[in-house]
Amino acid sequence: MSDSSIAVAVIGATGIAGQQFLSALSKHPMFHVTALVASSRSAGKTYEEALCNDDGQLCWYGDDSFTDFADMIVVDAKTYVPDVSLVFSCVDGAVAMEIESRYARHVPVISTTSAFRYEDDTPLLIPNVNLSHAALLKRQQETRGFKGFVVPQPNCTTLGLAITLAPLHEQFKISHVTMTSMQAVSGAGRTPGVSSLDILDNIIPYIVNEEQKIETELKKILGISKGTTIQDASFFVSCACYRVPVIDGHTESVFVEFEQDVSEKNIREALTSAGTMTQDCPSSPMEWITVFDDPYRPQVRLDRERGNGLTTSVGRLRQDGSARRWKYTLVSHNTKAGAARGAILLAEWLYQEGWLSV
Amino acid sequence: MSDSSIAVAVIGATGIAGQQFLSALSKHPMFHVTALVASSRSAGKTYEEALCNDDGQLCWYGDDSFTDFADMIVVDAKTYVPDVSLVFSCVDGAVAMEIESRYARHVPVISTTSAFRYEDDTPLLIPNVNLSHAALLKRQQETRGFKGFVVPQPNCTTLGLAITLAPLHEQFKISHVTMTSMQAVSGAGRTPGVSSLDILDNIIPYIVNEEQKIETELKKILGISKGTTIQDASFFVSCACYRVPVIDGHTESVFVEFEQDVSEKNIREALTSAGTMTQDCPSSPMEWITVFDDPYRPQVRLDRERGNGLTTSVGRLRQDGSARRWKYTLVSHNTKAGAARGAILLAEWLYQEGWLSV
Amino acid sequence: MSDSSIAVAVIGATGIAGQQFLSALSKHPMFHVTALVASSRSAGKTYEEALCNDDGQLCWYGDDSFTDFADMIVVDAKTYVPDVSLVFSCVDGAVAMEIESRYARHVPVISTTSAFRYEDDTPLLIPNVNLSHAALLKRQQETRGFKGFVVPQPNCTTLGLAITLAPLHEQFKISHVTMTSMQAVSGAGRTPGVSSLDILDNIIPYIVNEEQKIETELKKILGISKGTTIQDASFFVSCACYRVPVIDGHTESVFVEFEQDVSEKNIREALTSAGTMTQDCPSSPMEWITVFDDPYRPQVRLDRERGNGLTTSVGRLRQDGSARRWKYTLVSHNTKAGAARGAILLAEWLYQEGWLSV
Amino acid sequence: MSDSSIAVAVIGATGIAGQQFLSALSKHPMFHVTALVASSRSAGKTYEEALCNDDGQLCWYGDDSFTDFADMIVVDAKTYVPDVSLVFSCVDGAVAMEIESRYARHVPVISTTSAFRYEDDTPLLIPNVNLSHAALLKRQQETRGFKGFVVPQPNCTTLGLAITLAPLHEQFKISHVTMTSMQAVSGAGRTPGVSSLDILDNIIPYIVNEEQKIETELKKILGISKGTTIQDASFFVSCACYRVPVIDGHTESVFVEFEQDVSEKNIREALTSAGTMTQDCPSSPMEWITVFDDPYRPQVRLDRERGNGLTTSVGRLRQDGSARRWKYTLVSHNTKAGAARGAILLAEWLYQEGWLSV
Repeated sequence: MSDSSIAVAVIGATGIAGQQFLSALSKHPMFHVTALVASSRSAGKTYEEALCNDDGQLCWYGDDSFTDFADMIVVDAKTYVPDVSLVFSCVDGAVAMEIESRYARHVPVISTTSAFRYEDDTPLLIPNVNLSHAALLKRQQETRGFKGFVVPQPNCTTLGLAITLAPLHEQFKISHVTMTSMQAVSGAGRTPGVSSLDILDNIIPYIVNEEQKIETELKKILGISKGTTIQDASFFVSCACYRVPVIDGHTESVFVEFEQDVSEKNIREALTSAGTMTQDCPSSPMEWITVFDDPYRPQVRLDRERGNGLTTSVGRLRQDGSARRWKYTLVSHNTKAGAARGAILLAEWLYQEGWLSV
Repeated sequence: MSDSSIAVAVIGATGIAGQQFLSALSKHPMFHVTALVASSRSAGKTYEEALCNDDGQLCWYGDDSFTDFADMIVVDAKTYVPDVSLVFSCVDGAVAMEIESRYARHVPVISTTSAFRYEDDTPLLIPNVNLSHAALLKRQQETRGFKGFVVPQPNCTTLGLAITLAPLHEQFKISHVTMTSMQAVSGAGRTPGVSSLDILDNIIPYIVNEEQKIETELKKILGISKGTTIQDASFFVSCACYRVPVIDGHTESVFVEFEQDVSEKNIREALTSAGTMTQDCPSSPMEWITVFDDPYRPQVRLDRERGNGLTTSVGRLRQDGSARRWKYTLVSHNTKAGAARGAILLAEWLYQEGWLSV
Repeated sequence: MSDSSIAVAVIGATGIAGQQFLSALSKHPMFHVTALVASSRSAGKTYEEALCNDDGQLCWYGDDSFTDFADMIVVDAKTYVPDVSLVFSCVDGAVAMEIESRYARHVPVISTTSAFRYEDDTPLLIPNVNLSHAALLKRQQETRGFKGFVVPQPNCTTLGLAITLAPLHEQFKISHVTMTSMQAVSGAGRTPGVSSLDILDNIIPYIVNEEQKIETELKKILGISKGTTIQDASFFVSCACYRVPVIDGHTESVFVEFEQDVSEKNIREALTSAGTMTQDCPSSPMEWITVFDDPYRPQVRLDRERGNGLTTSVGRLRQDGSARRWKYTLVSHNTKAGAARGAILLAEWLYQEGWLSV
Repeated sequence: MSDSSIAVAVIGATGIAGQQFLSALSKHPMFHVTALVASSRSAGKTYEEALCNDDGQLCWYGDDSFTDFADMIVVDAKTYVPDVSLVFSCVDGAVAMEIESRYARHVPVISTTSAFRYEDDTPLLIPNVNLSHAALLKRQQETRGFKGFVVPQPNCTTLGLAITLAPLHEQFKISHVTMTSMQAVSGAGRTPGVSSLDILDNIIPYIVNEEQKIETELKKILGISKGTTIQDASFFVSCACYRVPVIDGHTESVFVEFEQDVSEKNIREALTSAGTMTQDCPSSPMEWITVFDDPYRPQVRLDRERGNGLTTSVGRLRQDGSARRWKYTLVSHNTKAGAARGAILLAEWLYQEGWLSV
């Protein structure tokens, strides 16, 4: 790969997710940001001006890379920026589908939004998990007249679950999954996000639509690619999602039943040997899945940053009554693996696999 | 019931659980505390002296009722205090079985310790749940030569689970339970308890022995009494226990499968109509189980104090794929229902049912 | 006082502060709520309807008293409700001055808003502290053509500081005050309030305008009433205000210098003997100021609820280099003493002192 | 400086502070660890064995550098390890003075303990602050017969205060300092440390001896070196120390009065131009003191890691009534600047200044 060969735009560049994209793309060996795209409220301003609130306070939550972007002029999301070869989108809300489609007519779009997630012609791709699903993009291109395509990331809570279950399902066939999540407040964003009045010394037992999203997405991701369709996985999956007073990182309590008896050794091997496909990608973590022996790990504060936030940590793997049933805990970084950094690794991987040269 | 007719001793009176017993027994209409029992380190001192640490700081964590007990002389747990008709025990550790047995030779002992929990001849009694198991006490008395008996409370995490599953199992027969708990730090006590360095912005995925305790206790509590034995319930139960940054109150994410289809209406009725047996007890909460419609409830900080900490709160009751499977969340106060206040209600109920007049 | 003799309106009845007024006024021996006033968005609805958000969720954060008010019809704040003899106002923002003036033309208004706080003709009254300032209300009435008046409460952070300094200043003359506050998140309200993302494991060193408010208000409250003017206290006061991850209750670290040497005994007596003026008021706490000997107290979670949230707790009183300088810590409940409950006690006290019979 | 030229021992190597020393010394360009010293309980074991608790859990809280040390054999603190040229000590408790003296007879000891802090013949050295005080070490050597010496670090709360006040006192002469600290729980260590039950949703207004330590240390550090004595600074200093629910990093609210009027520009220049003496040290942060314009900064969670935990962050610098009085907030990392990393920078600086070649 030649240095900085691919010019990218970030859509939704002024939000927190956009800022995380910029932090992660600063000095990236493959991608260089040539366009910052945001709403008309920010358009025409420098990026620094666009990030200042009414009190003149700079609302930048990233690292020192800000200076790389401070003087770039923000482009209106209503227009189209030519001269980019790839788009990262984290634009909010109802306009996402329209904007992402506009760009996908020309170039690939990797998105952290949910706009395309549940479309029949759109795969939910995760590195190392379901490359075969990319074939579905051909159908998306034909149906919608795209030269590029839109690949959405799954929900941040689905991600760690899918990453850990994928190698298990592939080898041992899952029949039943029960999962309770303990989700960080950063998953709800900042404005308004979760009020501190609601979460200090507390747990909130409900996150709107979250459980259905995970159940739907997981069965799609672990489904079987048949030409240009994906047949959902047939196992039963049930989730319960809770918000907890943790800043970053989701913890998931997973109970899984297989169609057959499985040994602990085989499960461990399946988990720890996953991740080979991305090992040459620049953002690839040293370990794709870390499996702990120490029963007190993973702990979300201690382990969320593993592999620069891209490693999924697993622990407390233990048999559950019989060799067909197992339980474990996992920790996954919702705003790193589950958003910008995860999307960038996905782009690196798609590039490696030949999907970005449209 | 005549006022203050029953003289009680509190064993382990200087610890936090002991202090909670005293707060709850102050001005109690049925019980009056005539003896405070603790280790030889405290024996012979006034209760106030015994609670002062080396810095002269009074380590009392209860309410204003302290003055009721400040001047009582603490009795050595190695001796026996006659002239009490009932004992509440929350003594720590390995000595519990010996001390509780010494008192049970003469009078009933209600205990929050685990010393007797897993003994074959000992029931785990919960008000409104399993009165028939009290018959097992006859066997305990015969086997051990007790005139009184020892009734241990279940683990604080078992309690809310058993209270909510009992009316469901009775009516609909449970086949499978999966539960993930999010447990308050107060469950681990104070010294050393959970270090703040370990739990701020964090979740700990392991509590030693907790899962096995719950699984064992639940099957015993919901088992069938056959003369002087209890046959464990035959359903499958699997738990995963987590420590979370919450001060008081355990939250549990419950998935339950029945042997038959059940309607939401029937489940709700079963839950909300439970609790009638204790309704005349002085400590009885207005509602034994509260079922919320608001999907954002129960929240542990908002709901743990319901019914003076004795109400179990249930919410998010929802079907899980089919009418045989349901899921819900519950909140239960671990140091009120799950310790002193729960033990006192148990004593009131046993008195009402004729079990305290030994 | 005859039961329920005074009909009151609550303006801003749908917000959190309004709900706290209603909880505190339910079954109040002197006041009964006859009108709930809110914005036109809520007007014409029942109170229950007005509190439901778009998801149908009831946004009531108070206690069981909700049923007392659920069926009352909310009145538009743009109109005037006759037939009330007293108004409690916690209406937000720019409209407060206009609405409070409209009511003050007829009846007394006790307000938790800042609209009138810094007006020359308006006293900041605190029970037990500065009754003589009420004379200023005559000037307010004349200047503005009010038959009633508006008495605003001070800022919640000023309150505990003024309550503890008032008896000291009266007896020993203060020359210099330095105060650092550690303020609860509930002081910032709920929407948007303090984002949990900003405050977990964190401290925010800035609260807009807070320091100036406290400095201005304190000198006014402890100023000298001269006929119908108040001459600000002449001591120097400097504050630094921080937001901390605490739900309710402000902690203040106070350094005070007197014009003369003062003994610890005299300071303690001054503090503990304060509060006699309100002792016959229905809401009066048993202790107006509690002074702790235990150096680990007051702690905000343990002590904020003292006296039903109306007691100010003081501790760590210690000499600071010489007998002219002292330092201490205080805890005050920002949404109880500092809002609804404090305003109600103020009204009870004004009634007792003859100020409500306009 | 030649690579790894200096062999160092770490005394107290198994505790948290010791682990932080090892993490920071791994791959250090000047120092290489040749001896791990700990209590007889650990002696003779490999470092890995010594860190395992009774449950077999590895109690290592540092980063990946553990493998560098895992196989080293721990040496008994009762013996003496020759062949080291420098010692870092963080040994606990009453034995510190004896052990540190034993090593100081031969080599320099840099210590994070308080054993020597208040000795008349011992300076409290801080990089960039008080090099002239090192002359006092000559007296320490003579008095005690040391070929080496012991240099203790100040208390972690003193450190940021002294670093920010030093350039101000040097240029403008301070007359009065008032400081309220909001201290992280990590300052109290892990066993027992601060119980989570005491600090969640709470503030503790007392830390034993902390205020006196800071007051004493600050006047010593900013005192004037006169030959082999130090004359304490003559300004008045008063502190109030609070424990808050923050994991790492102390926040301090500082009020300072000068003997003369000072401009904001001059204060800023004094602060931002400090730190030049260490700029060639390997651990030196890019900025010794960062001064923020944004009034919402510094925030402890966002800023504690600046300069790898060695930068002191200052914000909200503002005049306080007159140009003689100023106030500001600071954030300093208590377990980085205030412990191992700070001690290592101190060693680097002493080496540079010629003090380590004994």
